[in-house]
Order: sequence, then structure tokens, then C-alpha cells
Amino acid sequence: MAKSRKQETGKEKVRYAVVGLGHIAQVAVLPAFTHASENSQLVALVSDDPEKLEKLGRKYKVTARYSYDQYDDCLGSGEVDAVYIALPNHLHREYGERAARAGVHVLCEKPMAVTEEDCLAMIRAAEDNGVKLMVAYRLHFEEANLKAIDLVQSGRLGDPRLFDSVFTMQVKEGDIRLNPREQGGGPLYDIGVYCINAVRNLYGAEPMEVVAFSSNNGDPRFQQCEEMTSAILRFPGRERLASFTVSFGAADVASYRVVGTKGELVMDPAYEYAEALKQRVTIDGRTRERTFPKRDQFAPELISFSECILTGAAPEPSGWEGYADVRVVRALYRSADSGQPVTLEPFSKDDRPSLDQELRRPPVRKPELVNTEAPSE
Amino acid sequence: MAKSRKQETGKEKVRYAVVGLGHIAQVAVLPAFTHASENSQLVALVSDDPEKLEKLGRKYKVTARYSYDQYDDCLGSGEVDAVYIALPNHLHREYGERAARAGVHVLCEKPMAVTEEDCLAMIRAAEDNGVKLMVAYRLHFEEANLKAIDLVQSGRLGDPRLFDSVFTMQVKEGDIRLNPREQGGGPLYDIGVYCINAVRNLYGAEPMEVVAFSSNNGDPRFQQCEEMTSAILRFPGRERLASFTVSFGAADVASYRVVGTKGELVMDPAYEYAEALKQRVTIDGRTRERTFPKRDQFAPELISFSECILTGAAPEPSGWEGYADVRVVRALYRSADSGQPVTLEPFSKDDRPSLDQELRRPPVRKPELVNTEAPSE
Repeated sequence: MAKSRKQETGKEKVRYAVVGLGHIAQVAVLPAFTHASENSQLVALVSDDPEKLEKLGRKYKVTARYSYDQYDDCLGSGEVDAVYIALPNHLHREYGERAARAGVHVLCEKPMAVTEEDCLAMIRAAEDNGVKLMVAYRLHFEEANLKAIDLVQSGRLGDPRLFDSVFTMQVKEGDIRLNPREQGGGPLYDIGVYCINAVRNLYGAEPMEVVAFSSNNGDPRFQQCEEMTSAILRFPGRERLASFTVSFGAADVASYRVVGTKGELVMDPAYEYAEALKQRVTIDGRTRERTFPKRDQFAPELISFSECILTGAAPEPSGWEGYADVRVVRALYRSADSGQPVTLEPFSKDDRPSLDQELRRPPVRKPELVNTEAPSE
Repeated sequence: MAKSRKQETGKEKVRYAVVGLGHIAQVAVLPAFTHASENSQLVALVSDDPEKLEKLGRKYKVTARYSYDQYDDCLGSGEVDAVYIALPNHLHREYGERAARAGVHVLCEKPMAVTEEDCLAMIRAAEDNGVKLMVAYRLHFEEANLKAIDLVQSGRLGDPRLFDSVFTMQVKEGDIRLNPREQGGGPLYDIGVYCINAVRNLYGAEPMEVVAFSSNNGDPRFQQCEEMTSAILRFPGRERLASFTVSFGAADVASYRVVGTKGELVMDPAYEYAEALKQRVTIDGRTRERTFPKRDQFAPELISFSECILTGAAPEPSGWEGYADVRVVRALYRSADSGQPVTLEPFSKDDRPSLDQELRRPPVRKPELVNTEAPSE
């Protein structure tokens, strides 16, 4: 197993292959290794684009370069301890399982996979092969969002009663996010998971019933997936509600608000990684605003995952965290399709993000892109 | 008919009785007559509380004072041309119909009534008796909200795709807003109509399908009505969506946002009358903020309604405007009760609020209250 190999050899750095060299890999994952050099090292690149392999390999001084066909060679090379999977959503399961079977740890972009079954298969594969599995929720290490969770959990807003979020962008024609739902395309998979993940952790609870309306304005971009979805989630106990709207056909907004019995928290923007985040807290009529500077939100994921690999600790956000969001996405699609509210099976999760997970690294500079572009304008 | 009586006598001011002397009458309606003196005059008060009649009668120099039992005397006195109905919601229909039958014009607080049938009966009563009927949507005369409608209709945000609103307050135990639904209690009737009215007029369209989740945290205040409701509305044509949450058990928020294909409009606060309203517009990434000062939002209703009575013009917001919101409230309750989305019958309305309805009057000072209190802290 990779973990014991590390400990035996006494190496201090986890050696990563980044699998998939699209936009997020190029603007965020690859540059993050500079800030994660305390325990993480970029040693291999996997892509089907020779130009990406060549140019990015040169830029990051990575000589081990593999096509997708050579993925097993990469995994079996003995030079790679972990993979960062930045592939299209429907490939997460396969590439995660193959890594696990080769004894290589798996750090996987969100959404974890397309179906609950996929998520469970990935969790099983990691367990069966004794490798670590983490889902790359960058906001679990980010100060503003962790402070928001801390504030809501502290009771300073009183009892939180409602969560409301809007996350929208104009996705460009041809972007992978517009793929059919079976491939994990559509706004719920890509950005809906941020809203779902936020409220699950702000409330520290799992939704019990959901309803959704999807819609489509007929734009040619939305032939394979919906334009937007509005959702309502009901949480157990004191019946907290949550609502959100996600769209691939509207101007940039990335905001949420929690209203409690005594006060209100607004995060606007809440979910971004390429700009500063802003928090506005109003308690008993007094408002306090705070801006959290733009930081490298990806290096903390690498540092935390490597730490878990090196020490044997359990990674968090775990595979179950990824599963918890995907099962809500799927319930929302069932509701949008059937026109009926959907009841979720009971599910619980004790580990929740908290302030002690916070890791601060300076922002990365936007690199020159190789054969890729931003998903939105 | 009152209208012809006015024209025959050549009087310039419409003489009003204010019916119901609760909080909104005392803090907003009665003081507004000072700013509406160009064509409106307060001449009578109707209440069951002798102390209110005595103290408010003295304060506003109104000698014609009636109990509810004497309402017909008031209507038949020949001294009253119009009533401003500020009674509990379930009394709007009866008091409106009785006024209409007596040839007295009716300006009625929102929500217009409890059921669609009630609204239609009021519309019929006004038509049959040749009197004017207006529903008191103060924001139809208010600069910030009219500018918001103008902005959205102008296309400067691109095609509007989604509306999202949160309107919440902590209603005090014992307040009339916590009455059973059959009496028009609950957050959808009281504050949900603001969200519904806002989006109907921002989109210039009527919803075709709605779904709602209501919830209750078990607080003793919410034994007769729900604590809060989250709703999603689907609009025809290019399938715009709207969502909102209203609550009587959460801290003060009164905000909405419209996101279009090119930009975003945020109104926060949007619906208040006791403070300044703020508008933030972001188009193509550039943000402009504007504060609209606190103004008297009730005098414009009186001035506009009196003008209609004096000139014979059709009042707007009309009874149909009130009906249009109540039918959505009722559909949302049917959905919340049944757990199913509800399809609305087609309905159309051509007259929409526009900037030429704007009327500015300075704010009123908060008067001393007589046997009443604010609904929330």
C-alpha cells in the first residue's frame, strides 16, 4: 500500500500525478504545488493532448508525462503516490478506482461522481485497497466559509432558519459543463454541489426532502442539459429550509445568505476562488462587513491530503462528503423530472468542516493557458 | 354614485374614512393625509376602540368617529367619499362590499382578501355599484422599485432569468399576522404578496406553475399558521424561474435579486417603508450602488386613488392586481398542503407599474401609538 511505502521509506513528500489538464488543473491545481511544497510534489502529468503535456511539463519541470492510455503505466511506475483527478465528472469513478487498485491515493475534484453508486464504488475501492480518498472541496479549508460555519454553529445568529443561495454563470458553448446529465453535465453537478455542500455544513445536517424546478430558455447551449434549476430542501428537527438557484445561462453571481432567529449572514461572493470573498453579518440590527483576500484555495487541499497520507489520518472532506452531495443532486433531478417532491433516505455524517482545518496560502498568478479556456466569459 | 356626486359638486378633495386603526393605520395611513392634502382629506375614523377614536380623532382633528357597528352610518353619512380599509385580512371583503354598495370608493390594504372568490366579489361589487377599487400596493408608486421594474424591462440586464427573494421578520406573539390561514394569517398573505407582486411586475408576466414547502419550528407563536414558506414559481415563455422564502420567525431581511443574462439587480432592503431602500446594479462586471431615501409611501396611494375618483380614470393597482397575487398565495398553500406542484389557470394583466406612476413625498415622523404596537421587534 502506498501509505506504508511512504512510511517505510521515510520520504517527506507525497508525489502526485495530475490527471486531466483542463482549465481548473491549469489555473489552480498545477500552480498550487508551489504553495504545497512542504509535503507535496508534482511528479507526473496525464493528458491526451501532447501539446499540454509538453508545454505544461516544461513549465512545471515534470518529465513523467502520460496519455490516458498510459494511465496504468503512470499508476504502476512506482513514482506516483497519489493522483489529483481533474477529469470530466463521468470519468472520476473509473480513474479513481483504477488508482485505488494500484495502491495510489485519490484526491478527486467535485462532484465526486455522477451517481450514488459511483461514489460508493469509489469509497469501497479506496477501503479495499487501503488508500486514502478525498474529495476536493476547496472551501473546507477557506477562512471565510469556515468562519461562516463557525458563526452559524455558535448560535450568534440565533437558531438558523433558512439558507438561500444563487450561483450563476454564463457557460460558453462547447464547455464540458454543458454535457448530458449522464456525463455529469448541468448546473446542479457543477455548481449546485457548492450550495448543497454549504448548507449541509452550515446546518450540520442532511436534508430529508427536496423539490426542484428545472428550466430551459431554448438557447442552443442547453440542448443536452438544463439551463437552470431552483431547489428547496427541508432539513430535519426544527424544520429548517434551504433554497437555491443555479444557472449556466445568467450573469455571474455566487452568493448565499443564512437567516437565523437573531441575525443574518451574507456571503457575496461566497464560492469564488479567483477573487476576494465578502462576508456581511447583521446581529440585533448591527452590521459588520469583512473582506477575505483572494488566496490559493487548492494548495490547502494538497497539504491536507498529503498530511493524511503521511500520518495515516482520515482525510476530510471524505468520500462520504462527496456522496452526501451527489445523493442530493440526484434527488433534485428526480424531483425536477417527475414534478414531485422526493424524500431522501436517512443519512448522517459526524465530521463537519471547522476552523481548525483553515490553511492560508497566497494567491497564485493566472498562468498562460494551453489549449483550454475559462468555462465562462 | 360617489364619482358623479364629486364631479357635480365640483369638490376638489376626496373625503376618506380610515377603517381600522391598528399599527399600519397609525404609523402610515393617518399621517399620510398631510402629504396628500392636494386632493385627499381625512374626515372619519372607524374603530371599535373608543380610546383610539378619541385620541386619534383629537390628534388628526377628525370629529366623525364610528364603531364597527356604526360602519353603515359612516358610509351613509354623505360625508365620506372613500374608505381606506386597514382591517384584518378576512374583513377586507365584507367591508369593501358594504362600502361599494353604499356608493363609497374602496382603497384596500394588501393582501386584497383571503380567497380568489373574495377578491372577485369585491371587484364585482365595485363594478356593479360604479365605485373605484384600488389595492394599496405602496411600492407601485415608489422610486426604487419602479426603477427596478424599468431596469429589468429595459433589457439592460439582458433577458431576466431568475428572481430570488427573502422577506423575514420576527412577529410578536399575539399579533394578528399569526391568525389562522382562514383569517388571512401567515407569512404568505402578509409578506409573501410583496415577493409575488415584485416578480410578477419585474417579469411583466403571471406564473404558470408553483411549488412550496412550509415549515414550523414548533414555537408557540406558530400554532395557528406556519412559521415560514419557501416557494418556486415558473413563468411562461422563456421559462423564467422565481424563488422566495418568507418567515415570521427569523431576523429582519427584505431583499430581492434579479439575475439576467447580462447583469444583476439587488434590492436590499427592497420592501421597507420605514427606512431607505438600496439598489445595487451590476452590468458587464461594473457595479453601481444607489440609496433611495425614506419617503412617505402611503400619501402617493391616496393622491393617485383620489385622482382616479376625481377624473374617472381607472385605478392601478386595481382589484385584478390584488386578485393576481392572492391566487398565487392560494396555489402555494395548496402545494404546501398537498406536497405537489400546482398548475395555475392562465391569467393575464396588461397594466403594469411604470415610472410615470412615481410620486415623491417626504417621510412621516413616527407618531405616538395608541393601544397598538409594531408587529415585530
